[in-house]
Amino acid sequence: MENVSLVELVSNKQIIFRDYITGFPKETDMVSRTGTIRLKVPAKEGSSSSNSVLVKNLYLSCDPYMRLRMKKVDDPYVPAFTPGSPISGYGVAKVLDSGHPDFNEGDYVWGFTGWEQYSLIDNPQTCLMMNKPETLLIKIKHTTDIPLSYYTGILGMPGMTAYAGFYEISSPKKGEYVFVSAASGAVGQLVGQFAKLMGCYVVGSVGSNQKVDLLKNKFGFDDAFNYKEEHDWVAALKRYFPEGIDIYFENVGGKMLDAVLPNMRPHGRIAASGLISQYNLEKPEGFHNLFLLITKRIQMEGFVAPDYYHLYPKFLEMMKQYITDGKIVYVEDTVEGLENAPAALVGLFTGRNVGKQVVVVARE
Amino acid sequence: MENVSLVELVSNKQIIFRDYITGFPKETDMVSRTGTIRLKVPAKEGSSSSNSVLVKNLYLSCDPYMRLRMKKVDDPYVPAFTPGSPISGYGVAKVLDSGHPDFNEGDYVWGFTGWEQYSLIDNPQTCLMMNKPETLLIKIKHTTDIPLSYYTGILGMPGMTAYAGFYEISSPKKGEYVFVSAASGAVGQLVGQFAKLMGCYVVGSVGSNQKVDLLKNKFGFDDAFNYKEEHDWVAALKRYFPEGIDIYFENVGGKMLDAVLPNMRPHGRIAASGLISQYNLEKPEGFHNLFLLITKRIQMEGFVAPDYYHLYPKFLEMMKQYITDGKIVYVEDTVEGLENAPAALVGLFTGRNVGKQVVVVARE
Repeated sequence: MENVSLVELVSNKQIIFRDYITGFPKETDMVSRTGTIRLKVPAKEGSSSSNSVLVKNLYLSCDPYMRLRMKKVDDPYVPAFTPGSPISGYGVAKVLDSGHPDFNEGDYVWGFTGWEQYSLIDNPQTCLMMNKPETLLIKIKHTTDIPLSYYTGILGMPGMTAYAGFYEISSPKKGEYVFVSAASGAVGQLVGQFAKLMGCYVVGSVGSNQKVDLLKNKFGFDDAFNYKEEHDWVAALKRYFPEGIDIYFENVGGKMLDAVLPNMRPHGRIAASGLISQYNLEKPEGFHNLFLLITKRIQMEGFVAPDYYHLYPKFLEMMKQYITDGKIVYVEDTVEGLENAPAALVGLFTGRNVGKQVVVVARE
Repeated sequence: MENVSLVELVSNKQIIFRDYITGFPKETDMVSRTGTIRLKVPAKEGSSSSNSVLVKNLYLSCDPYMRLRMKKVDDPYVPAFTPGSPISGYGVAKVLDSGHPDFNEGDYVWGFTGWEQYSLIDNPQTCLMMNKPETLLIKIKHTTDIPLSYYTGILGMPGMTAYAGFYEISSPKKGEYVFVSAASGAVGQLVGQFAKLMGCYVVGSVGSNQKVDLLKNKFGFDDAFNYKEEHDWVAALKRYFPEGIDIYFENVGGKMLDAVLPNMRPHGRIAASGLISQYNLEKPEGFHNLFLLITKRIQMEGFVAPDYYHLYPKFLEMMKQYITDGKIVYVEDTVEGLENAPAALVGLFTGRNVGKQVVVVARE
């Protein structure tokens, strides 16, 4: 390794998290700043090697859970952002220099990185049996038939969320009735397609007629509705599921869950993956139909994808095959340029994105 | 079978359900009436046999779920009482006459009967794989070392509720931390003792200091607290469970569940058996900490005992052994006389009872 101090400083555009917020996030909660960085891993003092990796960020992922990191809470499962530092999150990057034995210059990786052009990632964790998912970095076996950006979605954390929640949590059976909320998002679109591959009947709820169309004509959902145009969700679900719902894949929370419960069939399952409708509220909406959990004997389980990352190799092989065979389709909403990342993230909470929201920092 | 019309009519005191109610039940929601009954099963017209059983009621069970039957709701899982007819519920009875092949005069039975001195039970269901639990009638193999009244509690539906909820739903492991609400009731006292037999650490919440004492000194709970004397339940649970809770056996609902969630350990389990704090409310209290279900990966499952009645023979054998070996103790709160049944039922909702609430109609 060369002496890092001899390596030239280059400029490094960053998206800085300003401070903890309440309510809906705004673009102005983040600010662009240009710093400098040397594109080499610094040598450890008193040691000849370092475990760090220096990467060029290519694709950044906008995920609903990131709103939770904008709040100062003492939750070890969702560590808060640091005011004054770059936003961090899942992304795809290219290794420019590595002090880590598992990575070499030129490798493509997915995992946790910063919202900036270049990131120095200290001590990334490469083991899939992890207890600190926010340090994960996985080498990508890149092939030209799969876009690299897919590792922020269908082949990354959202893909694993859909996979674990449907196959591991929901105990699906052929012919069952499946309801997915936020169904055109990164997770929802996959859950619906997994359900169809399993031989289930699947209906999704989304926030626009364009997305209804997408579900029915692109992802192959049996039916879909725009929740903004339905005033009585209990009645709407009754219409779409006259026989009731066996599996609810919960991405939104709040009143939708209360509307689902009266429509659940006995021994139904609810996989709770996210509650996007609740993340901007100071006090979450109450859920009132808990008693139906008992009389209908419902199993409701919360889960997070990293608990299932040990299944990632199996998942990846399956998904690549599905993608190349055209059995699963995938819609991304890409925004060009790091400077547009704040708007992209904020847009998740108004449903502006159609499909998985990705920010392109660089393509190579 | 004799000609029924030749059999003398005897008087039959009954507790009649007046009409559907809102709010807390009152004694005056039920009224005593004396009718008449012939103590013989009537012959079926045009047929020589009948499937009915004529019983003398001995012990009646007061159970929290009965409040739900006082509301006119279209829920097939909890059928409403019929205004003008006797209250119905679990009880222990003696067969006086039988047209059913499974029962003979002199048999003791437990299952669904009426709140009256004598009941004619039409077409009781004797199969434990049932879909209509409200017609269940099971023959008791009576031995003098086990009180017959136990079949309304520890050896009946509440016992099966504790058994199924703890062993089948909660996946308990030795050394885990277990919290039980309504812990001195018919179900709670057994869950706590099952947990101790499994080698768990168990704490219960109850509504009086007398019950705290009962939990600690009679049932062997590791600790117990009076929820009425604690103003911050989140803090109280943190004190009793500094390491967190692995299993919550939910009998009360409402704010207690919201206080439990922040104290749950990752991958904890919640067995939802009942929500007694909510049954008298027109709109149940909201449950707000749903998101913690996700970040802590909690499994919450509602269940009802009848789904597990196929395990009853195994359960019964185990429990009888535990009782005769003194490994499990059991506290009943018995009220003498059918006329006192309304007060006993109403008292469940103010926590007046200490232990399982039983009404003695007759002892033989």
